[in-house]
Amino acid sequence: MTKPASEENYFSSFSSLFVPKIDGFMKSYFQKKKVNPEYDFISGFYDDLEEYSLRNGKRVRPLLLLLAFAGYSESGKGTGEIVKIAAVLEIMHNFLLIQDDIIDRSELRRGEKTLHILCGEKYGHLTGNRRIGSDVALILADVLFANAVEIIADAKIDIALKNEFLKLFARTYEMTAWGQILDCLCSLPAEISDTSIPDKIGTIKTAYYTVYYPMMMGLLLSGKRSKTEERRIRDFALPLGLAFQVRDDILGVFGSSDDIGKSSESDLVEGKLTHLIIDTLATLGEHDKKLFTEVFGKEEKSRKDISYLQKKVSESGCRERSQERLSCLVEESRRALLKCGIDGKGKKRLGSFIDMVSKAGV
Amino acid sequence: MTKPASEENYFSSFSSLFVPKIDGFMKSYFQKKKVNPEYDFISGFYDDLEEYSLRNGKRVRPLLLLLAFAGYSESGKGTGEIVKIAAVLEIMHNFLLIQDDIIDRSELRRGEKTLHILCGEKYGHLTGNRRIGSDVALILADVLFANAVEIIADAKIDIALKNEFLKLFARTYEMTAWGQILDCLCSLPAEISDTSIPDKIGTIKTAYYTVYYPMMMGLLLSGKRSKTEERRIRDFALPLGLAFQVRDDILGVFGSSDDIGKSSESDLVEGKLTHLIIDTLATLGEHDKKLFTEVFGKEEKSRKDISYLQKKVSESGCRERSQERLSCLVEESRRALLKCGIDGKGKKRLGSFIDMVSKAGV
Repeated sequence: MTKPASEENYFSSFSSLFVPKIDGFMKSYFQKKKVNPEYDFISGFYDDLEEYSLRNGKRVRPLLLLLAFAGYSESGKGTGEIVKIAAVLEIMHNFLLIQDDIIDRSELRRGEKTLHILCGEKYGHLTGNRRIGSDVALILADVLFANAVEIIADAKIDIALKNEFLKLFARTYEMTAWGQILDCLCSLPAEISDTSIPDKIGTIKTAYYTVYYPMMMGLLLSGKRSKTEERRIRDFALPLGLAFQVRDDILGVFGSSDDIGKSSESDLVEGKLTHLIIDTLATLGEHDKKLFTEVFGKEEKSRKDISYLQKKVSESGCRERSQERLSCLVEESRRALLKCGIDGKGKKRLGSFIDMVSKAGV
Repeated sequence: MTKPASEENYFSSFSSLFVPKIDGFMKSYFQKKKVNPEYDFISGFYDDLEEYSLRNGKRVRPLLLLLAFAGYSESGKGTGEIVKIAAVLEIMHNFLLIQDDIIDRSELRRGEKTLHILCGEKYGHLTGNRRIGSDVALILADVLFANAVEIIADAKIDIALKNEFLKLFARTYEMTAWGQILDCLCSLPAEISDTSIPDKIGTIKTAYYTVYYPMMMGLLLSGKRSKTEERRIRDFALPLGLAFQVRDDILGVFGSSDDIGKSSESDLVEGKLTHLIIDTLATLGEHDKKLFTEVFGKEEKSRKDISYLQKKVSESGCRERSQERLSCLVEESRRALLKCGIDGKGKKRLGSFIDMVSKAGV
C-alpha cells in the first residue's frame, strides 16, 4: 500500500536518461584511446575492453552516484563532468568483474563470454600457455583501473572535492576487496561455523559497494557532505544492500526467469555459503545435514546434486523465510529514506529503486 | 676510464639515506591500517602485506623518483611528503609483482615465498578451493592499489601538481600493463616471428616503468616540468632501461651469484622469448634450431634441458654479444645523462646507478 504502481517509473526514467550518457562517455573514451596508440597492438585490446564495458547491464552504481548528486546539489550544475566520474564506477566494476570471473572460472558475464574466455579464444594460438586467457584478462583489468584514474584526473571538477573523492574511491575499493576476500574464504568452506559471515559479506560487497559508497560519492560531489547526511545514507543503504544480497541469494539457489546474465543456481554450483544455505542447514537433522554438506562441498556438481540441494532448501521453509527477511529489510530501508535530506525527486527515484530490489523471486 | 671506482657510492649513499625513509613510511602506514580496522579479520591480512612490502629489495623506482625530485627542485622542500609518493611506486610495484607471480606460478619472490604460496599455506585449510592462495593474493593486490590511491590522496602536496601526477600515474600503469600483455603473449610462443618484440617489452616494462616514469614523476613534483627536460630524461632512460633488460636477460639464462631473489635461469624455465634467445636461434642450423625450440617450448623442463639450452646460448657467442650490447647502451645512456638539466649531485647519483646496471654477468 505504501507504493503506487506508477512509482516504479522514477528510477527507470532516470536510468533511461543517464545510461546512454554513461555508456556514451565510455564509448568515446575507448574510441579516443584507440587513436594513435603508442603501440599498434593496443587498439585491438581496447576493442575488447570497449565491447566488454558496453554490454547490457543496469549501471546501478553510476546511476546511484548521479542520482545522489542530482538530489543533493541544488543547481545540478556540472553534471557532464559528474557523468565521467560516474562512468569510473562502471569501469572499476568491470575491473572487479573480470577478476571475479577469473577467480570463479565463470564462462558467462552479462549473457556473453567472460573476458578470460574471450581472450583465451582470441590469443590462445599465439602461445603454448594454456592459461593465457586468464593472464591477459587479468592484465586488461589493470588497464581499466589505470583508465579509471586517468578519467578522474582529467575530470574538470573542483580540485579540492576531487581530492576528497579520491579518498572515498580508495576506501570503496579497499573495503570491497575485503568483502571479496571474505567471500573467497567462505566458498566451499571446510567448516561451516561463523553464521554472521554471510551478512558481513553482504554488507561489504553489496550494501557498501553498490549503494552506500556510490551515494556518498554523489553527496560529496554535490558539495553538501555532512556527518548527519552520511549517517542517513548509511541507514538507508545498509538494509537496502542487505535486501539486494538476500534477493541475490534466492536467485543464487533457485535461479530466475529474470535475465541476470549469469548461470542460475550459481551459488550452489560455486558452493557459496549464503544465509539461505546456513538457515537451511540449521533445520536439518544429523543425517540430512551430513549429506547436504557433502553434496554442497563437491567441486563438480551434477544436475541431480543441484536439484537435491534446491529441494532441501525449499522443504526447509527457508526460501519463504528469506522472502520475509527481504520484505523487512525493504521496509526498513523505505523508512530510512523518508529521513534523508535528498530532494523530493531523489526520494521518488530511490523509492522506485527499492521497489525493483524488493521484487525478487516474483 | 669515464668513471672512477668511487663514483659507485653516490647512488648507494642516496639509497642508504632514503630506503629507510621509504620503508619507514610503508611500515607506519600498514601499522595504522591495523589499528581499529572496520572488521577484525583485516589486521591479519595487513600483516601479510606489510611483511611482503618490507622484504629486501632495491626500491629502485621510489629512489629514482626521489633522486629526480631532489635533483630538479632547488630547495628540496617538502621531501617528507614526496617520500610518501615515492612509496606509492613501491606499493604499486608490489601490486604488479603479486599478479606477476600468480601468472608465472613463481614460488619465490625476494628470496621468500610468493604471496599466493603464502596465502595458500595460511588459508588453504579454510576452504575446499585449491586455488585459494592465488585468489586471496590477487585480491590483496587490489588492496595495495587502493592503498596507493589513498596515500596519494592524503599526501600534502600542491593539489594542482597532484592532479598532474595522477595523469602520469595512470599512464605509467596503463603502459606497464601493455608491456605485461606483450610479455605474456611472448612466453612459450607457438611461433617465433617478430624479433622486435623483446625490445618493445624491454622499453615498456623496464625503460618506461623502472626509469622514465619514476624520473618524470620526480621532475613533475619538483615543479620544473618542461618538454625539453622530458625529452632529455627519455634519451637517458630508454637506453638505460634497455641495458637493464639486457642484463636481466643474461641473468635469466645463466643465473648469477648475485642475490636476485628469484630462481636463476627463470627465463629458460618460463620459456620467455628474450633477445638473447632470439639471437641464439638465428645462429643455429635447421636441426639444432628445431631441437632448441622444442626444448625451449616445454612447459616442464628438466635440469638437463636447462643445461642444454645454456650450452647452446654460450656456444652461439650470443652471451658475449649481449654483453657488448649492454656496454653500448650503457655508454649511450651515460652520454645522454650529461645533457640532462638535473643538478650535479643528481648526475653523480645517476652515474653510479648506471655503473650498477652495467655490472651484469661479471
